[in-house]
Order: sequence, then structure tokens, then C-alpha cells
Amino acid sequence: MTTQELLQGAKAAKSAAAALSTQEKNRLLLAMADSLVQHQADILAANDQDVEAARATIAPVMIDRLRLTGDRVAAMAQGLRAVADLPDPVGDVLSEITRPNGLVIRKVRVPMGVIAIIYESRPNVTADAAALALKSGNVCVLRGGKEAIHSNTAIVAALRAALRENGAPETLVNLVEDTTRASATQLMEARGLVDLLIPRGGAGLIRACVENAKVPCIETGTGICHVYVDRAADLDKAVAIVYNAKTSRPSVCNAEEVCLVHRDVAPVFLPRLKQALDEKHVELRLCPEAAAIIPGTPAGERDFDTEFLDYILAVKVVGSVEEAVAHIAAHSTGHSEAIVTQDRAAADAFCAGVDSAAVYVNASTRFTDGGEFGLGCEMGISTQKLGARGPMGLCELTSYKYIIEGDGQVR
Amino acid sequence: MTTQELLQGAKAAKSAAAALSTQEKNRLLLAMADSLVQHQADILAANDQDVEAARATIAPVMIDRLRLTGDRVAAMAQGLRAVADLPDPVGDVLSEITRPNGLVIRKVRVPMGVIAIIYESRPNVTADAAALALKSGNVCVLRGGKEAIHSNTAIVAALRAALRENGAPETLVNLVEDTTRASATQLMEARGLVDLLIPRGGAGLIRACVENAKVPCIETGTGICHVYVDRAADLDKAVAIVYNAKTSRPSVCNAEEVCLVHRDVAPVFLPRLKQALDEKHVELRLCPEAAAIIPGTPAGERDFDTEFLDYILAVKVVGSVEEAVAHIAAHSTGHSEAIVTQDRAAADAFCAGVDSAAVYVNASTRFTDGGEFGLGCEMGISTQKLGARGPMGLCELTSYKYIIEGDGQVR
Repeated sequence: MTTQELLQGAKAAKSAAAALSTQEKNRLLLAMADSLVQHQADILAANDQDVEAARATIAPVMIDRLRLTGDRVAAMAQGLRAVADLPDPVGDVLSEITRPNGLVIRKVRVPMGVIAIIYESRPNVTADAAALALKSGNVCVLRGGKEAIHSNTAIVAALRAALRENGAPETLVNLVEDTTRASATQLMEARGLVDLLIPRGGAGLIRACVENAKVPCIETGTGICHVYVDRAADLDKAVAIVYNAKTSRPSVCNAEEVCLVHRDVAPVFLPRLKQALDEKHVELRLCPEAAAIIPGTPAGERDFDTEFLDYILAVKVVGSVEEAVAHIAAHSTGHSEAIVTQDRAAADAFCAGVDSAAVYVNASTRFTDGGEFGLGCEMGISTQKLGARGPMGLCELTSYKYIIEGDGQVR
Repeated sequence: MTTQELLQGAKAAKSAAAALSTQEKNRLLLAMADSLVQHQADILAANDQDVEAARATIAPVMIDRLRLTGDRVAAMAQGLRAVADLPDPVGDVLSEITRPNGLVIRKVRVPMGVIAIIYESRPNVTADAAALALKSGNVCVLRGGKEAIHSNTAIVAALRAALRENGAPETLVNLVEDTTRASATQLMEARGLVDLLIPRGGAGLIRACVENAKVPCIETGTGICHVYVDRAADLDKAVAIVYNAKTSRPSVCNAEEVCLVHRDVAPVFLPRLKQALDEKHVELRLCPEAAAIIPGTPAGERDFDTEFLDYILAVKVVGSVEEAVAHIAAHSTGHSEAIVTQDRAAADAFCAGVDSAAVYVNASTRFTDGGEFGLGCEMGISTQKLGARGPMGLCELTSYKYIIEGDGQVR
């Protein structure tokens, strides 16, 4: 099947997806979970093929990401069951007014329609994205990376078997077979067929989608996150927060990349911070003023504009909250930033001034996550301001329409 | 000033715009209104220049759209005062939760930032768009058409005089001097500088923006709107609604372009409809089945996919609500559609099945409008599902951010 045929099939399934009741969706999700477990042998055999093929070209750490096991398949199934437990956002009445002319205008939450996801991540994204799309009444078009194509094909076959056996159209969940750049381009340009495109993966993929998409697209994930340690910071908390934001999982987008420190506390704070981070062998890239206080690598020109995703932290001394806010405005990707301070006015100025999806007072940037925000799940984290911003749960995969009831009104 | 310099200035003004209190914004809007009236002579003189230059190249009807008068300047000023009266959406707390770990997560409405508007309409859009952007805490970058450049320059000079005299940065309101295609392209590609791009104008402009934009963009305005007259329609209401939707203002996007009629009522309804529409000399483009009932032009291949914006109506006979919904899915631009019926089940099926911004039961599509929806104003009508959908008032020009208060929480 060509990608174009697949997209036509996806479009044709939109009304069926939107019409599913909450109960039907949950039944399908539970059946899909069971089907993954039942097809575990097929999935693991397909995954073996991918892993074998990848050995020649991919680093061992990536092989581990690609590899599935019985436990990982069980975890995918558990993920589907968790989505079944979440509330269904579709049909919520967001507002209702009666106009002087008698028209009743209701704003009702509806699915987006066809959501295309281009990803290069682990095969579990396949099941995860399919579940979130289905629960929010959407049809999904999944376009994974070529290194996982056998695994993804087997996973989608298992999901579709459950749909089929439960009388739902298989085309609710679609996997693009072509994993060349051509199919990604087709999705980006599929005006009238794709209602929303979500790229999930590295900065290069996301940039390519945002720049080339002719369909509505959400920019996700890149995070140059800052923690600003204010002059009025509780330094114990500051050390703990910076340590956590940098080292608890450096490879993720909500990890800290830059620490800004107020000049008044830098001489006390930086030695304490260095001592803590030395434990994890974090490399410090220091502005000249910080370098005069603690040892480290001098920061280069790009170090304040780099998502290291590693045990590396850029450090800069600033003279005020305003200077911190200005630095963030110039260098942040709009993901997550934190201030550590006991001063209410400083916290308020930071929260008002910083234009990022999530702004923290005295907490780690690592909390920017659908689960931690109480959304129960996550399709990604939006760093743009049109549409969803921050963690995208089920509601963030919906739109709305106006339904207007009249009795013959004309204008 | 180059467009790039102008965009840098706009970006630098974002925090000032976001920080304005409601009171300050209203004071500025009233001063801007007064300033338009005070500068009326300059504005009319500049407009004369535009009108003189346009005489050679532009049709008389377009000249009328371009021309300003004392009354029209007064109306622009009144428009600014009306925006001052609207509630300020910025700072609204959209939700607040406390997590088990003690984090308090508030979702707060914030401005988009820099909104660029590319338009080819009348010069009053300049004042109108500036007012809506300012009230919603945004900086605007206005890029009007070359035929109105002197008028737009004079209007922005008057608005900026009011900003200056009231101690606000002039760069809250920016007019792009370059009216060549190059400046439009620059706005479309201004990643990191433009937070939202809104095209207002003809289908060609909108398509160019949506296809080429690398910044978040909202597709607006194109409307192939349908009215479906069901077998259970009250035919008096049906005639009145189709007549109104087609003829009250055919040049606007919420006007009807296609009438679908159920086979059971077509023999009675179509002659009555024709009689009513003859009064306005509406040309009917008929499917073969309709043509067997009333005289008219045979519908050509493109007639069900054309935004006529004129006294032309395409008519098609269908056999069921489902067929009407399917026709709309295949041909609509997702703007506004209506069903005329006394049958609740048919109305519900239509509302559930039609995937457009506004779906009407027994009312004219002409109501899709910010004012008619109670928003008080309108920046345009979105026909996409990411971000705002339908009429865009002040709320629809905002985004949100999460502000998370902790006490040292780490993950």
C-alpha cells in the first residue's frame, strides 16, 4: 500500500474514530493490550530481526533502546490499559451561551482527526501513540524509523488484530511501511489528509518537520532548560535542585543544561555545587566569572545554546533576576526553567518574565512530564505557543467545534 | 528600517506588552482612538495618495474598499474604544492542581508574543488588528498591501504617537515598510521572532502562508459553506435560511456556496427556493437531478469546490443525511455548515458527522462571526484544528504557560 492510499484510508476512518463511545474505546484498548501479550512471540521474533540488522550500524546504547523483551511487551500492554483508565475528553462541553437572538452556541471538544506521528524512538512509542490517539477519538498514522520497522509492523499487526476481532476498522491505527525520507515528506505535505503532525525524536527531525510541514505541526521536545539560583536562594535546596535537574536523567528534554547564579551567592554556592556534581563527574563549562571561583572548562561560544543531553552543565554568573530572565529569553528553547529563591518578588518577576511552557519556583525542571502534571500520559512536550503547550495528554490531542442550535434565525 | 530589524524590535517589546496591566492597555487604546481622530487630516491626505496611485490599476469596487473618509476614521477610533471595553483574558488561571508531592501547578493564560498579520484588506484592518493584539498583551507586526501603504503608514504613525505620549514603547505596534513578496516571506520564515502568523485576505495569500510558513500559522477564512435541507425541514425556514446565507452578503467567507437538498423535499422546495433567489438574480448551478426540477445552469466539475463569493449557488440533491455529511466531508473547507430539519435525530447525526468549525441547526451560516458569537471582536476565522478554531477573539490570541510552585521538590 502506498503512503497516499494509507492516508486516504485514515481519512475515511475519521468519522468512525470520532463516533466511538468511551466504553467502546476502552474495550478496544484492553483488547489491544491482550493482543500484544498474545502476539509476544511474533513481536520478539520481529524485534530480533531489527536488532540483528542494527548491530552493524548502531551503537550498543541504541541497540538497547531498540531491543524488546517479554517484560517490555508486558509494559506496553500495561500502558494501553492505563490509557483505558483515563477520562475521555471527547464530547466535553467547554462553554455554552444563549445569544439575545435565541441562538444557543455550544463549544464542544472533538478529536483532531488524523494525527501523524513521525518518530525515531523505541518501538514502544508505536503502541503508546496508537493508544493515546484512539482514546482521544483520533486516527493515527505512525511513521517510525527504519531500524525498528519489523518490530513496529508486528506491534501494529497485533493491535489491528484486536480491532478486527472487535468489529472496529483496522484503519484506526496505521503504520507507514515506507521508512525513507519520501514518506516523511508526504506526511508533512498531506494537506486535507493530516490534521496534526507530531514529530518525536532528535532536534534534526523536529526541525525538518517544523520547517517543511504544510500541515499543522507541533514543535516538541528540544529543551535547553535553565535553573537560576537567586541571591535569596536557600542554597541547600538550590544544590539539590540543580543536582537533580542535571543528573537524574541527562538524556531527556526536561534535564537542565544551564545554571545561572546570582553574583552575591556565587562564591558560596558554586563550590558546593561543584562538590555535589563531581560525584557524577559532571563537566562544567564556566563563564569567566564562574571560572574565577571554581575550576572547570571555559565556556565556548555555543555552550549556552546547546542541548547537551549529557553530564555537562554550562554555568553563568548574573547580576539580577532581570539579567537571568534576559539570558533565558535569548537562549532558551521555551521548554522549562526554574528559579530557586525565598524572595516572593523575585519569584513573581521570574514567572512573569520567563516565556517558557513550564516555569518553576523551587522545584526541578524534571517535573515537566504528562504523568507528573497529572495528565496520566504524554504524547510529547510542546515548545510552541499555538495549540498545546507543555506536556500533551489526551485533551491536548483534541480540538473543538461550535454547535449552534437555532429556530430559523437569519442575519 | 529593515524587516529583520523591525522583528528584533518587536521581540524586544514582548515582555513590555505582556506586563501591561488591563488599566494601562485600556488607557493606551483610548489614547490611540483619540489620536486617530486628531490625525485625521494626515490620514486622509495619505489615503488620497493611495487612491490616486490605485486608480490606474485597481477596479472601482476595490477603490471604494481602499478609500477612507472622516466617518471611516471615526469608525476605526470607535473600534479601538470597543476593544478597550472588552474583558482582558491575560492572567486568567485556567486550572490549578496540587500534586501528591506538594507541587502546585497553575495553568495561566499568557499572550502569544509577537503576532504577525499579513493582509491585503482595507486600511481599517491596521487599527483593528493593532487594537486586538495590544489588548491581548501581544506585539503586532502588520504587513499590509502595497496599495494601502501610505494610509497604513499614517494610521500607524497616529497609533504610535499615542503610545509615545503615554510612555509605552512604540514597538508594540509595527508596520512593515517593505510591501514586496520578500517581506512576507521573511515573516513566514522568522523562527524565534514570530510566535504566530495570521494571514487575512484572499485564498491565494492564505495558501501561500500556510504552505510556506516555518512559524506557527493559522489558516483563516476560506469558506465553502453548505446548507443541507433535510427531508424533515420546515420549508419556510429552509427558504429563509438559504436566502439569507446566500444573499445577505455574498462576498464574505460565511456566505453559503452550496445547497444540498433531500430528494423527498426537492420537488417542493427547489421551485420555492428559485422563486426567492430570483429576486436577487442568483445564478443556480444544478446537479442533473435538481436540473430536472428547476431551470438553471448545469453544474460543472468545479462548482462544488468553488468559493464563489458572488450571487451564485451550487445545488445538489442527496438521498440522506449521511450522503449530505459525506458530500460535505469531501468538499467543505471546514468553515460553517447548516442543517435545516425538525428531526432531532437527523440534526444530531449532522452535528456529530460534520467536521467544521461551526455546525448549525436551523440557522444561517452567516452567524459565524466574533461579534455574533459574543466575543466582541474578531481577528479572523480559523478553519484549522490546531490552536483556535472558528472566530478568533481576544482569548484566541493567547497561549498559556504552567507556573509550578514548589518547596525544593526533586524527582
